[in-house]
Amino acid sequence: MREIFEAELRQVGDDLTAMSRLVERAITDAGQAVLTADLALAQEVIASDREIDARERDLDEQCVRLLAQQAPVATDLRVVVTALRMSSSLERMGDLARHLAQLARRSYPAHALPPTVTDTFTQMHDAATRVARRTTALLETRDLALATTVERDDDLLDVLHEQTFGALLSADWIGSVQETIDVTLASRYYERFGDHAVSVARRIAYLVTGEPAELA
Amino acid sequence: MREIFEAELRQVGDDLTAMSRLVERAITDAGQAVLTADLALAQEVIASDREIDARERDLDEQCVRLLAQQAPVATDLRVVVTALRMSSSLERMGDLARHLAQLARRSYPAHALPPTVTDTFTQMHDAATRVARRTTALLETRDLALATTVERDDDLLDVLHEQTFGALLSADWIGSVQETIDVTLASRYYERFGDHAVSVARRIAYLVTGEPAELA
Repeated sequence: MREIFEAELRQVGDDLTAMSRLVERAITDAGQAVLTADLALAQEVIASDREIDARERDLDEQCVRLLAQQAPVATDLRVVVTALRMSSSLERMGDLARHLAQLARRSYPAHALPPTVTDTFTQMHDAATRVARRTTALLETRDLALATTVERDDDLLDVLHEQTFGALLSADWIGSVQETIDVTLASRYYERFGDHAVSVARRIAYLVTGEPAELA
Repeated sequence: MREIFEAELRQVGDDLTAMSRLVERAITDAGQAVLTADLALAQEVIASDREIDARERDLDEQCVRLLAQQAPVATDLRVVVTALRMSSSLERMGDLARHLAQLARRSYPAHALPPTVTDTFTQMHDAATRVARRTTALLETRDLALATTVERDDDLLDVLHEQTFGALLSADWIGSVQETIDVTLASRYYERFGDHAVSVARRIAYLVTGEPAELA
């Protein structure tokens, strides 16, 4: 019984990691699509979000089945409940990547973001892809040093988010209203992406240390 | 044993309803604060979000305890897992009300939204408060007619969200960049608020009918 349970729990862990890998791919491609006005890539991200949603549903069912059949307690129970929560955060991260890709698609063949903010958004893109990669690695290895770097990159995303508003409100800003809207939304999507990754990171940290941290 | 379990399950239901009532109050006051530039009301909403967050944590602990001590199966299990998910949606709805209130606070003593969009945002406010009120009633009564009206008001929020972009992109729009940003964000917050309410409504519908609907 215990062996079956542990195998199933490992499966849940593997599925979360696989789901996180899809999110990593989605945010990487979405950011690329926005920065380079790549329609085909944007379409791919939008289509692939269905796969991420399906993974969430599968994981949910797996977790509910585990709870029903194994009635885990203590740490085992916490692992299953946490998995439910993490799949929901990963699903939202996938949605945010899709929203970014949709911005790129709507603006095509123009760029969604004007050249004046390219540098800031390149930094956001880099931070978000690091966050996604390390979330996957954290799910795989439970190495809490990775959780710290996710928090740090989330802080950076917050700073860049503020910086974006600074650029929009500066006297130099000559973008159109559409560009103002798109910059505002894209920046918000990245900021939220970081928040969800922090939420995953803190949940894993809680599982590893048993110390509850404030959840993002 | 069964009696204790049922009493505890009822408690979870009551706590969700109470949490939803706080969210209802928060979105009502937040919309009011934005529409009338009421700083004191905005502060209240911002402060009260901590209470909503605390309710989520309490509900989580209750649910995990229930799972550990009672090892529910079948419908009972689904009720507990769904409660975990709904408390998380309600917590996000509280966050979105707080974000709206923060917009009002940042703009004070000016209005965050220029007069040209007051009509659209009054409609959004009305739809969102209806959604919140009916979510509470739905949690309390499980009357699925309410779930339908939540879906309908969410559709209305989506239409109004699009309408807001229409207003921003029309030749008549003379708002400042700050106003463009604030209108974009406020509209997005309302749109997301509706999505989360639909997610709660569909989860309740699933519990009542056993028919899974696509989750928002």
